[in-house]
Amino acid sequence: MECLKRRILREGRLQQGRFLSLDHFLTHRIDIDLMQQIGVEFHRRFGDCQINKILTIESSGISVACLTAVQFGVPVLVAKKSRHPENYPADFFRSKVKSYRHDTVYDILVSKRELTRDDRVLIVDDVLANGGAMSGLIDLVQISGATLVGAGIVIEKTFEPGGKLLRQRGVRVESLAKIAGVDEKGKITFEE
Amino acid sequence: MECLKRRILREGRLQQGRFLSLDHFLTHRIDIDLMQQIGVEFHRRFGDCQINKILTIESSGISVACLTAVQFGVPVLVAKKSRHPENYPADFFRSKVKSYRHDTVYDILVSKRELTRDDRVLIVDDVLANGGAMSGLIDLVQISGATLVGAGIVIEKTFEPGGKLLRQRGVRVESLAKIAGVDEKGKITFEE
Repeated sequence: MECLKRRILREGRLQQGRFLSLDHFLTHRIDIDLMQQIGVEFHRRFGDCQINKILTIESSGISVACLTAVQFGVPVLVAKKSRHPENYPADFFRSKVKSYRHDTVYDILVSKRELTRDDRVLIVDDVLANGGAMSGLIDLVQISGATLVGAGIVIEKTFEPGGKLLRQRGVRVESLAKIAGVDEKGKITFEE
Repeated sequence: MECLKRRILREGRLQQGRFLSLDHFLTHRIDIDLMQQIGVEFHRRFGDCQINKILTIESSGISVACLTAVQFGVPVLVAKKSRHPENYPADFFRSKVKSYRHDTVYDILVSKRELTRDDRVLIVDDVLANGGAMSGLIDLVQISGATLVGAGIVIEKTFEPGGKLLRQRGVRVESLAKIAGVDEKGKITFEE
C-alpha cells in the first residue's frame, strides 16, 4: 500500500533510538482519511471471505478495526486486557499474551456470548512485531470454535519473528506495509 | 437519540448488581451501524463549530472518536494513559485523572506537537459519570491553549456528578442519552 509506505517514510520517527514511533498518523494522532483507505484495502483483500466479525485488542487496534468494520458492515469485538482476570465472570474465554516490550504477561478476554462457533473472524491490529498479542487473539478464536479467516496487519516488522510464527500456524497474514529494517539513524527499508 | 435509548433498554445489563454494562453494543462488542449514527448525530450538533480535531482517551472512546471524525473529516487525537509519565519526553502536555471506579489516579498525556493553540477541539467519550477522564481532557486542552468547542458524550449518567461539574466549568456538554437512574433490578430511567 504505497500511500501508507510514504507516510511511514515521512512521519515515522525513532524513539529512544529503538522504537519506531507511528504516533503522528497511526496511534496517538489518527489520520482518519488514511485509516479509511486501510479499511478499504483490507476489504479488497478479505471481502470475499464471508467475515461477520472483526476482532482486535485494546487500544491501538480499535481504530483500524472500526474503519475496517465500516467497509465490511460487521461489528467489532475488542478483546479486553486484564491483569486481574479473576474479576471477570466464567462466561469469558481467556488466553495469555506476552508483552516483549514491557516484559510482562497479561490475560486477554472475550465474552463467550460474543464469539461463537458460527463466527467467521478477521483479526486486525496496527503493528505486528513479536506477535504476542496476535497469538493470544488467535488462541481466543480457536478456543471459541469460531473460524479464523485471517489477520490484517497495518505494519509488519519482518525483522521481528511474529509474522513467521503466525504463518507457521497456518494463518493467512496480510500486511499493508512490511518494514524489513530500521537503522540507528532511523532509515527505514521495506520488504518488497 | 431514540435508537440509542432503545438499545440501552434492550441490551444494557447490570453487572455485579452495580455497574450498567454496555458491553454488547458499545464497548466490548461495537455495533458499527449504531456508532456511525452516533457520529452523524454529533456532527448534526457540532457541525457548524469549525472543529479541526477530535480528542478522546484510550480505550473505549476511540471507536466513538473515529466514527465521529469520519463525519467531520478531521483527525483523532487519543490521549495516552500512563502510570509512568516520567517515561515520556518533555514535549507532552500532561494532566491527572482520578478513577472513581478503581480508586486510583493516573496521568494522561498528549504530544505538544499534536495539540496547539490553533486547534478547535471536540472531546468525545462513551460514558460520562464522575467526569474524571473528561476533566483531565479539558485540562489538557486548556493547558495547550487550544479552543474547547464542547464535549460529546454517548451516555451520561445524570445521577453522577460529572455532567454538572463540566457544565459549571462552562463546557457545552451534549449527551445523546441521559440515564437518570438504574434500580437494583436493572430498570433504567432516562432524563427527558
